Amino acid sequence: MRIALIGGTGAIGAGLALRWAKDTDHEIVIGSRDPERAREAAADYQQTASEYGSAAKVTGFENAMAADRADVIILAVPPYHIAATIEAIADSLAAGDILVSPAAGLRRDEEGFHSRPPSAGSVTQLAADVAPAAVPVVGAFHNLAAGRLAALDTPLEVDTLVVGDDDEAVRTTMALAAEIDGLRPVYAGGIGVAAEIEGLTAVLINIAESNAEMADLGVRFR
Amino acid sequence: MRIALIGGTGAIGAGLALRWAKDTDHEIVIGSRDPERAREAAADYQQTASEYGSAAKVTGFENAMAADRADVIILAVPPYHIAATIEAIADSLAAGDILVSPAAGLRRDEEGFHSRPPSAGSVTQLAADVAPAAVPVVGAFHNLAAGRLAALDTPLEVDTLVVGDDDEAVRTTMALAAEIDGLRPVYAGGIGVAAEIEGLTAVLINIAESNAEMADLGVRFR
Repeated sequence: MRIALIGGTGAIGAGLALRWAKDTDHEIVIGSRDPERAREAAADYQQTASEYGSAAKVTGFENAMAADRADVIILAVPPYHIAATIEAIADSLAAGDILVSPAAGLRRDEEGFHSRPPSAGSVTQLAADVAPAAVPVVGAFHNLAAGRLAALDTPLEVDTLVVGDDDEAVRTTMALAAEIDGLRPVYAGGIGVAAEIEGLTAVLINIAESNAEMADLGVRFR
Repeated sequence: MRIALIGGTGAIGAGLALRWAKDTDHEIVIGSRDPERAREAAADYQQTASEYGSAAKVTGFENAMAADRADVIILAVPPYHIAATIEAIADSLAAGDILVSPAAGLRRDEEGFHSRPPSAGSVTQLAADVAPAAVPVVGAFHNLAAGRLAALDTPLEVDTLVVGDDDEAVRTTMALAAEIDGLRPVYAGGIGVAAEIEGLTAVLINIAESNAEMADLGVRFR
């Protein structure tokens, strides 16, 4: 399968790309608005993964071209860029493709981080509202610390919650998540409950900021 | 120390009372609007704990009398009863007492459970707004499954998030939580971030309802 990381030069895109490159033989496609940056990041990730014995192929392209080459497209961009990013790649999406939204809307004040979903209710819902009708949207990978993903020697041993209304898209996304060593996908319901899951990101950051020994924090349900 | 569980005949009150009775020698005071029900529940909990070798004393009283006898008062009542409950016990609260709020405001629709905090922002904030000025409020024990607490043979191995603005009250509450075997308190910030922590309760219920093998779910941060 080919997985595109739109905004794949950013921290969460890099982390997911590195883990999939290390642990699977899926072709990883890095997308960026700047194709040269995408190519450089792809070469960098492939080199890093190869040091862990991986033969995975990582390529880099402008976002729309990256989406065109992939079956599963991860929207690894800030929440306020989700709508514009989907519109920019919409012509590259085909029926059968899957869009995956890992972003969470947060605001910070003097008390800490708070959940601030967009008016659609959640970032995942916003993505679903903007996506072409034939392309299902799944929410996943919200509650992963980018630094921990990128630290390939660090066992993950965490869960990622998955929400979506299209059963096959959910199954495919969960299978891709499960192929990352130490990452367990946990289904949490339809897109209608995505806001609560995105809000967990604020909790994780607040805990990390309150506990020096709990940086790059993840969560496991048990 | 004496710990009162206001609404202690309910599921979460019963679960916390049983765990403290089993694992500590604190005196546990069960509060109920009906003193006879409080006494019956207390006798029941003490009997159950004694079967685990505990000599803990569990007594039962009407809510205000229970609060009067305790140093730490857990508001184990539904979120919409928090304000009236604090008002009902206010005359029994003394400077140095600590109020602990474990409740989360939720609503359910066809999509699942959602966080619905009161207009104060969170149940913990509401409790702090209503509590006498000399009595600090701490948010804790939100994300624990009552059934798992009450199943005394089941290891907990979960975390509870603690929020509060009074350092000593937070420390005391965290110490009481840590005395329950398998329960780890994790400080998550001030009362200003309680809403996000209360919202996690909705996530846990949504996961449990989507996964038959994940009933009585807890969470561990790692």
